[in-house]
Amino acid sequence: MIATGTVPIRPPVLGIDSEGVFGASSLDDGSRLAQAIDRGGIEKAVVVGGGYIGVEMAEALVRRGLKVSMVDMLPQVMATLDPDMAALVVDALKRAGVELYLEEKLEGFEEAKGRLAAVKTDKRLLAADLAVLGLGVRPNTSLAEEAGIALGISKAIEVDDHQKTCEEGVWAAGDCAQSFHLVSKKPTWVALGSVANKHGRVAGINIGGGDAVFPGVVGTAVTRFMDTEIARTGLQECEAEKLGVDCVSRTITDHILAGYYPDPGKITIKLLAEKATGRLLGSQIVGTRGSARRIDIVATALHAGLSVEDMINLDLGYAPPFSSTWDPIHIAARQTLKLI
Amino acid sequence: MIATGTVPIRPPVLGIDSEGVFGASSLDDGSRLAQAIDRGGIEKAVVVGGGYIGVEMAEALVRRGLKVSMVDMLPQVMATLDPDMAALVVDALKRAGVELYLEEKLEGFEEAKGRLAAVKTDKRLLAADLAVLGLGVRPNTSLAEEAGIALGISKAIEVDDHQKTCEEGVWAAGDCAQSFHLVSKKPTWVALGSVANKHGRVAGINIGGGDAVFPGVVGTAVTRFMDTEIARTGLQECEAEKLGVDCVSRTITDHILAGYYPDPGKITIKLLAEKATGRLLGSQIVGTRGSARRIDIVATALHAGLSVEDMINLDLGYAPPFSSTWDPIHIAARQTLKLI
Repeated sequence: MIATGTVPIRPPVLGIDSEGVFGASSLDDGSRLAQAIDRGGIEKAVVVGGGYIGVEMAEALVRRGLKVSMVDMLPQVMATLDPDMAALVVDALKRAGVELYLEEKLEGFEEAKGRLAAVKTDKRLLAADLAVLGLGVRPNTSLAEEAGIALGISKAIEVDDHQKTCEEGVWAAGDCAQSFHLVSKKPTWVALGSVANKHGRVAGINIGGGDAVFPGVVGTAVTRFMDTEIARTGLQECEAEKLGVDCVSRTITDHILAGYYPDPGKITIKLLAEKATGRLLGSQIVGTRGSARRIDIVATALHAGLSVEDMINLDLGYAPPFSSTWDPIHIAARQTLKLI
Repeated sequence: MIATGTVPIRPPVLGIDSEGVFGASSLDDGSRLAQAIDRGGIEKAVVVGGGYIGVEMAEALVRRGLKVSMVDMLPQVMATLDPDMAALVVDALKRAGVELYLEEKLEGFEEAKGRLAAVKTDKRLLAADLAVLGLGVRPNTSLAEEAGIALGISKAIEVDDHQKTCEEGVWAAGDCAQSFHLVSKKPTWVALGSVANKHGRVAGINIGGGDAVFPGVVGTAVTRFMDTEIARTGLQECEAEKLGVDCVSRTITDHILAGYYPDPGKITIKLLAEKATGRLLGSQIVGTRGSARRIDIVATALHAGLSVEDMINLDLGYAPPFSSTWDPIHIAARQTLKLI
């Protein structure tokens, strides 16, 4: 049973082993970072990478009172969101005072007087007392490769729906193994604790002589930056395009609770569907507290292959402290149906 | 198009028209009640009925600083929950200082010096400066009946899945009309704004020459009492029993968020399933803030006819501020699967 997880991506740039450059992969990484801040003298932090880890680390550093900058080589943060939805995350980062440097490539780290002084991109030098790497991870498959186990998408270990590898008697589970995507109907690689745990349960049952199946994932992920909740599931526009699926989408902004309720919140929901059939393809949500968990409704619908019209009639819980009579998910579905 | 809603149930007991006895059906009812409390001299309130409206009115009165008692003729509050889950609501009511008088039948209201003095049950006299009726509603169908329109379950107007009544050219929607229950596969009557709105949309499209279908409801409802959230969907045990469905259930209590998270909350989830097939039948949830909306996952699963095993593999959003790697819904499904 191979459960070797991931290794963090550390580009071989100059100065990456400087004392002030921190990973964000292990508990030890976290302790070292917290201790460095506690020792004092840290004012400016640069987060390299604008994905989930980068955004979560930016929150942690802002809450510690640091001046935070973020660098990403892509033109947007949160690459698992469509650019229009990622723009709402940029707004939230800016509101919290995070300075963004997008489309800038990390070139290295510069030291002065034996400590980190700056992060170097292809466009500028950013003064930094501390830098955090949030550049993602890759499957840790060296053991599997040496044993001749076949790798699949993203070089994760290829497994069937029983978590079996190509070798009889060898299983794989967790971040080192691939999953099946129930919307694209293709293999995918998701490095998330929730998926890893499900892999482990299925592998364990099967190794123990039982018969369990892991049907697959729909690509759900949630995170939070300060008071902004961020969620996604299913396919995003660029993924649908790659698959050749003719995809329509609508984005709505609404209150989370009944509009007359004190502090009714604000939620933006994008819903994606197949134009020809109305089949739901995915959703992205950015909003105030209480927004993100609505992604679970769409995730469950994706598991079941529901259509946009099915979504309109979902009998979701309604009471003014929880939603409007038409939940924002319903509103998004009603708007999307007009395009089908 | 008949959209006559409901009429509140007012039992013909002595003193029901006393000045201090308030309904809870209209905006005017609410205004009158608030004004009566604002005028002062009100210390003791009795809520008659322990359903959604009764529980919500009890919260409003507790928040106004009144000493609140609640009377219900059933042995439990919240009759749409199984007794074991309703007991958790009783705990919450008691924690807030609400005195409960269950299995007591309302016999009338007594006045002294021209104002309400007591609520009389078959067991006692409860001193009361104010009483609120939360005894439920019935479909307002006198117009339909006079016109010879057929009534169905609970004497709600019988409609097909296009919201058509038995009379050509006559439609009905909202609290006066019945719905189809997607789990029991039988007609049901639900008087909720969320369902009424969906009825209205479908009736409107069809009256306008379009073709829309309202497939039905799964019986979802949510409410809140102080910091306790309450939710239900699908069938409860007694409903499954009446249908002759062999039903198994498991109840789990867990944190809402990752257990190491500050203030991880507490949620109790009961999951019901058909023993023979593993088909999900329903769920009830009682817990702290953030609990109730998880009912939407089960509601969506009921629409799609998912099984308990399907629930275990749902790709729900995971991040420590939102849930554990295994969401409490997964835990409940894993425990329930052991009985199938």
